[in-house]
Amino acid sequence: MTTPQTLKGFRDFLPETMTIRNKVITTLKAVFESYGFSELQTPTLEYAEVLTGKYGEEAEKLMYLFKDPGGRNVGLKYDLTVPLARVMGQYPDLPKPFKRYQIQPAFRAENTQKSRYREFYQCDIDTVGTTSPVSDAEILAVISDSLKALKFSDFTIRVNSRQILFDLIIKSNIPSNKSLSVLQSIDKLDKKTREEVSLELESKQITPLQIKDLFYCLEKAQPDPQLKEIIDLAKKMGAKNVKFDPILIRGLDYYTGAIFETMVEKPKIGSITGGGRYDQLIKNLGGPDLPAVGTTIGLDRICDVISDLNLWPDLPVSPTRVLVTVFSPDLLNNSLSLSKSLRTQNINTELYPDPNIKLDKQLRYASAKGIPFVAILGPEELEKNIVTLKNMATGEQVKVPQNEIQSYIS
Amino acid sequence: MTTPQTLKGFRDFLPETMTIRNKVITTLKAVFESYGFSELQTPTLEYAEVLTGKYGEEAEKLMYLFKDPGGRNVGLKYDLTVPLARVMGQYPDLPKPFKRYQIQPAFRAENTQKSRYREFYQCDIDTVGTTSPVSDAEILAVISDSLKALKFSDFTIRVNSRQILFDLIIKSNIPSNKSLSVLQSIDKLDKKTREEVSLELESKQITPLQIKDLFYCLEKAQPDPQLKEIIDLAKKMGAKNVKFDPILIRGLDYYTGAIFETMVEKPKIGSITGGGRYDQLIKNLGGPDLPAVGTTIGLDRICDVISDLNLWPDLPVSPTRVLVTVFSPDLLNNSLSLSKSLRTQNINTELYPDPNIKLDKQLRYASAKGIPFVAILGPEELEKNIVTLKNMATGEQVKVPQNEIQSYIS
Repeated sequence: MTTPQTLKGFRDFLPETMTIRNKVITTLKAVFESYGFSELQTPTLEYAEVLTGKYGEEAEKLMYLFKDPGGRNVGLKYDLTVPLARVMGQYPDLPKPFKRYQIQPAFRAENTQKSRYREFYQCDIDTVGTTSPVSDAEILAVISDSLKALKFSDFTIRVNSRQILFDLIIKSNIPSNKSLSVLQSIDKLDKKTREEVSLELESKQITPLQIKDLFYCLEKAQPDPQLKEIIDLAKKMGAKNVKFDPILIRGLDYYTGAIFETMVEKPKIGSITGGGRYDQLIKNLGGPDLPAVGTTIGLDRICDVISDLNLWPDLPVSPTRVLVTVFSPDLLNNSLSLSKSLRTQNINTELYPDPNIKLDKQLRYASAKGIPFVAILGPEELEKNIVTLKNMATGEQVKVPQNEIQSYIS
Repeated sequence: MTTPQTLKGFRDFLPETMTIRNKVITTLKAVFESYGFSELQTPTLEYAEVLTGKYGEEAEKLMYLFKDPGGRNVGLKYDLTVPLARVMGQYPDLPKPFKRYQIQPAFRAENTQKSRYREFYQCDIDTVGTTSPVSDAEILAVISDSLKALKFSDFTIRVNSRQILFDLIIKSNIPSNKSLSVLQSIDKLDKKTREEVSLELESKQITPLQIKDLFYCLEKAQPDPQLKEIIDLAKKMGAKNVKFDPILIRGLDYYTGAIFETMVEKPKIGSITGGGRYDQLIKNLGGPDLPAVGTTIGLDRICDVISDLNLWPDLPVSPTRVLVTVFSPDLLNNSLSLSKSLRTQNINTELYPDPNIKLDKQLRYASAKGIPFVAILGPEELEKNIVTLKNMATGEQVKVPQNEIQSYIS
């Protein structure tokens, strides 16, 4: 290989990027744990038979399946739901409801595009083992708190339910064998006009009367009692901007009850969560017969948007707060002592390692790494028992007593 | 698959295990960052040619190499050093010294045994781009601070250097073509007696005089000026228990200068770090010609020992601090409000989701999950505006005003 490179769709996270990712992940974990969700991690590799036969042929074409050095058929994990189903089967004594979050990479050999990767991070929260609407509501509250904690203020959590969608079809006298196809067209109503969707429905042999009834029912649609209870509970838990939306459609093979999706309007991110109740799925994926509800949160997309739009301008690029320079080889020990003392005060401190490098270059290093403060300790400073502290953003230099550095740079 | 299972050598980290792992990782990251190291993450998969031809045939037998769905030759990462070499080549503009830590899984199809897994976590810290002994010393200081932060107090950081080892061979008049074999025997001196090692050396056609000289030189061995400087600097940085040890041998194809290893005596963990200076390796691994020094820390081993020996008995099993029970369906809203209020006070709070389940069973759930406190809110409590708080460890029950819960359970 002449030029070193990563595989397409696979990413290095250099330190600057990790700063944002770590902050996003820490923020989300704190919210999840505040609701009693605990972390689960599962292996990168699974037996191939754990992965296959679950999501159909199209999905399997995207799976990384291979033989391991021992000749076993194995595969990289494709999502976090199949491993969850396996875990529920493998550890039947796990207390239920089992409330877990999981933030790990999954692998799909898809065509790559912006914010779509072949190794991507899934971030899932799920409650397994109860049909209580309290758990559905809690997922909505967690989503709302997560977005608030990430400082996305302008969002809508759209909710709907499988039952309401099928009721629409029945009330409009549309034959049940056409329901999936019709719902796919309805799903486009948030991007296309009513006229465009009508034409599409006509092309699917839906009669004008059926179409008229369908739109009428959509307009009049109300949450059913269970969905209403979920929405009410979520609001009481503090969830913001939860809205019933009868044109929200999600995978209908997957969900059995309520379905959720979050649109972030500002910044214009679009859909960043998707979830709902899936009381049959864990069994269908080879696990035990346990009801479940949960959501996935688009971690990669969130990190990309925060980075691209510079949404967290105040987040330091580097975890390092101060670079202690070395004025000359004979003053190395003084800089070393200062570094040690700053660390004792819980200030992340990098000591420039080479006393033979000119101060100028040491300052450029701090600048290149995004370290906000530089400490200079020359003969003059030592004589007066002070430190020259340079703010790299403003260029301002101040001379401060050693024991007052902390208050200057915090 | 009749019984759901993980692949041998691959692990699920259930919530209890994750609590310890998260604490260990958070602790280590804080120490690394306090010295100005930043996080790097690299992909799970690399081009096969990035991985192969680096560590010899034996290593390659252990690699997970395969063709991806697009027909590319790829492999799971085998360590974190090869990806570091690739990163240094791929991003030549990274400011140097480049100080990174990386905590990610690596994959080796080895025979499994206690604390040896096929998917294992490596935890590496390295400084790339300087030959300064300050950087060697800093690695020792980071190791020392890390072990202190993990509350392992009784440890020895053994240091030696490649040059000192080869000087021993020369001074004992042992032919240089036997040096590696002789050093392998010396390496056993921390487990075998001097007599046993002598016999082994004799079997390698080392003469009695050469053996006598070798042991004499070992006894008299002193750190050379550079190693002395590293040790002195490390001590000034605050590193504890750094000891020169001429019988410390590590991979001699790998290291070019100082070598380090840490033995934890109590608890009796054995070796949990290994590292040193490797000024040729990044180039040899296909990267640019950059000197480097670093260490790996045995994260899996540390987590296993803390768990097996119950070294952190005070660490809560669950991140959840309190389970708010639901007394009866009509009081669900009251429990919900209490949960919300506790979360506002930064108390991780789980609300039991099903109001139809008996209180007794709700308490058993808290106990099974290791949640330390349970809040009970029945008609009596509501009337008096109090909460019954049960400490699950002691069984003690107290009745406290709602606004005083925080001080009781913190």
